[in-house]
Amino acid sequence: MHDVGIKVSGEQNAKSAIGLPLVSRKSERNKIVWVRDVPIGGESAIVMAGPCSVETREQVVETALAVSRSGASILRGGAYKPRTSPYDFQGLGVEGLILLREAGDRAGIPIVTEVMSEEDVEIVAEHADMLQIGARNMQNFALLKRVSRTHRPILLKRGASATVKEWLAAAEYLLHGGNENVVLCERGIKTFDHSLRNTLDLAAVALVKEMTHLPVVVDPSHATGKRSLISATAKAALGVGADGVIVEVHPDPDNAWSDGAQSLTLLGFAEIMGNLTKPVRSLRTPTNVPAFA
Amino acid sequence: MHDVGIKVSGEQNAKSAIGLPLVSRKSERNKIVWVRDVPIGGESAIVMAGPCSVETREQVVETALAVSRSGASILRGGAYKPRTSPYDFQGLGVEGLILLREAGDRAGIPIVTEVMSEEDVEIVAEHADMLQIGARNMQNFALLKRVSRTHRPILLKRGASATVKEWLAAAEYLLHGGNENVVLCERGIKTFDHSLRNTLDLAAVALVKEMTHLPVVVDPSHATGKRSLISATAKAALGVGADGVIVEVHPDPDNAWSDGAQSLTLLGFAEIMGNLTKPVRSLRTPTNVPAFA
Amino acid sequence: MHDVGIKVSGEQNAKSAIGLPLVSRKSERNKIVWVRDVPIGGESAIVMAGPCSVETREQVVETALAVSRSGASILRGGAYKPRTSPYDFQGLGVEGLILLREAGDRAGIPIVTEVMSEEDVEIVAEHADMLQIGARNMQNFALLKRVSRTHRPILLKRGASATVKEWLAAAEYLLHGGNENVVLCERGIKTFDHSLRNTLDLAAVALVKEMTHLPVVVDPSHATGKRSLISATAKAALGVGADGVIVEVHPDPDNAWSDGAQSLTLLGFAEIMGNLTKPVRSLRTPTNVPAFA
Amino acid sequence: MHDVGIKVSGEQNAKSAIGLPLVSRKSERNKIVWVRDVPIGGESAIVMAGPCSVETREQVVETALAVSRSGASILRGGAYKPRTSPYDFQGLGVEGLILLREAGDRAGIPIVTEVMSEEDVEIVAEHADMLQIGARNMQNFALLKRVSRTHRPILLKRGASATVKEWLAAAEYLLHGGNENVVLCERGIKTFDHSLRNTLDLAAVALVKEMTHLPVVVDPSHATGKRSLISATAKAALGVGADGVIVEVHPDPDNAWSDGAQSLTLLGFAEIMGNLTKPVRSLRTPTNVPAFA
Repeated sequence: MHDVGIKVSGEQNAKSAIGLPLVSRKSERNKIVWVRDVPIGGESAIVMAGPCSVETREQVVETALAVSRSGASILRGGAYKPRTSPYDFQGLGVEGLILLREAGDRAGIPIVTEVMSEEDVEIVAEHADMLQIGARNMQNFALLKRVSRTHRPILLKRGASATVKEWLAAAEYLLHGGNENVVLCERGIKTFDHSLRNTLDLAAVALVKEMTHLPVVVDPSHATGKRSLISATAKAALGVGADGVIVEVHPDPDNAWSDGAQSLTLLGFAEIMGNLTKPVRSLRTPTNVPAFA
Repeated sequence: MHDVGIKVSGEQNAKSAIGLPLVSRKSERNKIVWVRDVPIGGESAIVMAGPCSVETREQVVETALAVSRSGASILRGGAYKPRTSPYDFQGLGVEGLILLREAGDRAGIPIVTEVMSEEDVEIVAEHADMLQIGARNMQNFALLKRVSRTHRPILLKRGASATVKEWLAAAEYLLHGGNENVVLCERGIKTFDHSLRNTLDLAAVALVKEMTHLPVVVDPSHATGKRSLISATAKAALGVGADGVIVEVHPDPDNAWSDGAQSLTLLGFAEIMGNLTKPVRSLRTPTNVPAFA
Repeated sequence: MHDVGIKVSGEQNAKSAIGLPLVSRKSERNKIVWVRDVPIGGESAIVMAGPCSVETREQVVETALAVSRSGASILRGGAYKPRTSPYDFQGLGVEGLILLREAGDRAGIPIVTEVMSEEDVEIVAEHADMLQIGARNMQNFALLKRVSRTHRPILLKRGASATVKEWLAAAEYLLHGGNENVVLCERGIKTFDHSLRNTLDLAAVALVKEMTHLPVVVDPSHATGKRSLISATAKAALGVGADGVIVEVHPDPDNAWSDGAQSLTLLGFAEIMGNLTKPVRSLRTPTNVPAFA
Repeated sequence: MHDVGIKVSGEQNAKSAIGLPLVSRKSERNKIVWVRDVPIGGESAIVMAGPCSVETREQVVETALAVSRSGASILRGGAYKPRTSPYDFQGLGVEGLILLREAGDRAGIPIVTEVMSEEDVEIVAEHADMLQIGARNMQNFALLKRVSRTHRPILLKRGASATVKEWLAAAEYLLHGGNENVVLCERGIKTFDHSLRNTLDLAAVALVKEMTHLPVVVDPSHATGKRSLISATAKAALGVGADGVIVEVHPDPDNAWSDGAQSLTLLGFAEIMGNLTKPVRSLRTPTNVPAFA
């Protein structure tokens, strides 16, 4: 196991005391969730990447090929989009699912996409390898119950104002409904500070890794909303022990139909993948500094 | 420079547009703040460590020797303690300053300690190598003005509910008052989630590094309030590009006079120093996985 | 119109600038939403009251008769309950709807109840006079769209972390979907302070009354979670200009299946109705005090 | 006592269990704090009014005469201003104190003004009838201790991110230091929603009235930051049981040196004083509506 200081002591075992027996960690063994042949929660961290919204065949195929070449293991993309206003672009729907499927197949990587409506669960599960529950629907219990009855692995985003316990309780709904293949995703929470889109809560990732055996990934794109911070925050996510990151990538972010400001270019994504495998900053220690007089 | 993706483009130069000319970054060059012979903001990150409160000679000297042996560059410790209730231990005052000075000298490392009152600035500046402004006093403008007139470097903690701009504006008070040797310290913010003591805001560290040339360090002890998470969150701090971390260490945390739950043991601190120099989790990439069928 | 200082000036008309044309206030005229023969948004404020959950025929009928006798205009009660944990009581479902209907009929007042699932919209609309969208589902856009196609008036609770604009945008989904009979409900937001269950945001009520012509009511029960504060906060709600309040009442709160701590007894509710019609505290003014020497 | 539903039961008496013996309520009897001949916490609520900053003799005298004529009992005004940026107007200092004193004397009402620095406590106490501790200094313990040793009554603003308990603990510092004449002031807290300047926490006022015998007033100006909402929120404050309100008034808000957007005109203040004495909205009750068919 990687060395991020997660210890499972008697204290942690007592965490089933939070009343969530299925998600509570019972041993040091981590759950590995397989998305086709991609293991999440195993020895290595993984990267999911792709556009916020599926817009056109060209856009999503180009992105899929580029991100998989750069090392992404899973293609992400939205066909159904939860939007604050009814006048914003609501996604291509089924057409988007078909394009995303085609793009994933051509790039040779599985796909993950959000499902927003109970009615759409069946069709989305038919096309996608992994179903995403979005932050706004984390406590849409009807949807959780419906999705838990599919055989697809689930990516459960943390609600923007969900406590750690509420997040784990939402996962408990999924396991209780019969689906054990749940990956948690921290994507930033709502706080008083609007310097960035949300406040990325990486300490919660370390805490959740103590409390549950389920894998946890991090979404620095929605957390920060700012392209120039994705590299640093993704690296911090690996540092804190996350099992992967999910980032937004677009061939032409300035003209993206949604979330352009936080999307990486194809080249920017390739650079970040390079940075993620380099060592973090060195530490000044007695072995590399002269003694203090 | 370390590779955390901090770029200084025209966009960032325009940040002086926030109306804080002295703290705004003008170039890629980072400010190095020297605390005696210890550089903060240079090539390597540094670690500050020590007890929450100075309690006894034995306690602080033992801690100082242990943390310096393990690689800490600066000794921290509180002689004046800001406490929510008037009935909590308020610190040893001048006696604490003297003990901390002695401990730092015996360990051969400089010391940092908090000053809470305008009246105490002179005496604290006499004994300590670096003055800390605590989170509760970040907008105590009378204290900021008084401290800015000393010749000691300053560790400016972010207020628990300060926006990034308010934090930088507090630093601007210090530079405007004549003291350029300011190190910013992220220590967690107050949010709706009380799973941990505070919410560690590491993305703000990356943002602030873009906006200012001043060094930024991270305090995972106050941010999380939980010993078992210090290692993971400290590593994340290095991952995001922090110039150092400051952690609480106590020879006997269970009997500490304050903040025991978040204090590391001497041995625990040594282990974390080892972890901080190991690589972060590996990444699953095309070069190390078979192609998807 | 009542005298709470809501003025519709050119400034407010410009509020359609927030991009929500249907909910934006165009004149001083307020929308009146009729729930059968009960007007919400008219000259007088109204009170909705009833148990958190429908438990038994006896419980809900006794409550209905008592609250209507004390002056409640609408009976509330939950048949489908959104619960953080899958192991908590999830509501009686259709059986609960039938009992609530019976209770409302016997008391001679209309009923409002929450609908949580797209699949249940039809059956709930069949039994209830008004449909409630709960705080957790405020951005469940699939549910909003489905409910907007019914002919029932809708009580739209503010999400616990929804901004005023997000709340109004959720209402816009309802109007855009064809249903103009929307009543907004402030029920407390999530903040750093957990002294009470939530933070009641009464200034937002005054702001929303400026921005929209839709009626706004206040739920002091969920906002405070504390029985002894319902009277004072309900009176403040009327003071700020709310069109009504919705409170939880139970014949035996200590044995309620949910939310007992915030439920009023039948007698407590009667007392509060009395208090709500008394004048607020007098003001010391020049006419009633001697001149200062 | 006024009828806002505040009951002192065994439960509330147990509140000394929060470890703050001096501020904890022991009986139904409320503390009355006298500011010269003005009682705060008595039968009638009081109004404090005046400009954010003292700017000129003409401005402060004109305001003082107008607000006292309209019914204000105390004149407020800032001579020392806590400002986020060092480049903002910092107040007139001693000159401002002298002008405020003169204005209060000419209007025949006592004055309250903020003290920000330990060094200024003596001079401010010499000129002002009541000393204000501002929100940013609520946990400036050195200042609290210093102010507690004066003989002036104190207006203690709640910190923008202070919990109820932290606020009461700050008051405990004052009583513990020897000054029993403390008035608490709720002025809005920092939350995720920036629709208004802060989030006015009126339920906390009702809670605090249960927990302590000290008077509590409300500042709708800083809480909302919006002139058009002052009337409605001030009325809500009386509805919730506050012992008074403190509002910003300026002869020419558009040209105020600080906080113009939230300042009332002299005429606007007079209108609000009229509104505050009118009854709140009527309630639809069985006695005034026909039976439901």
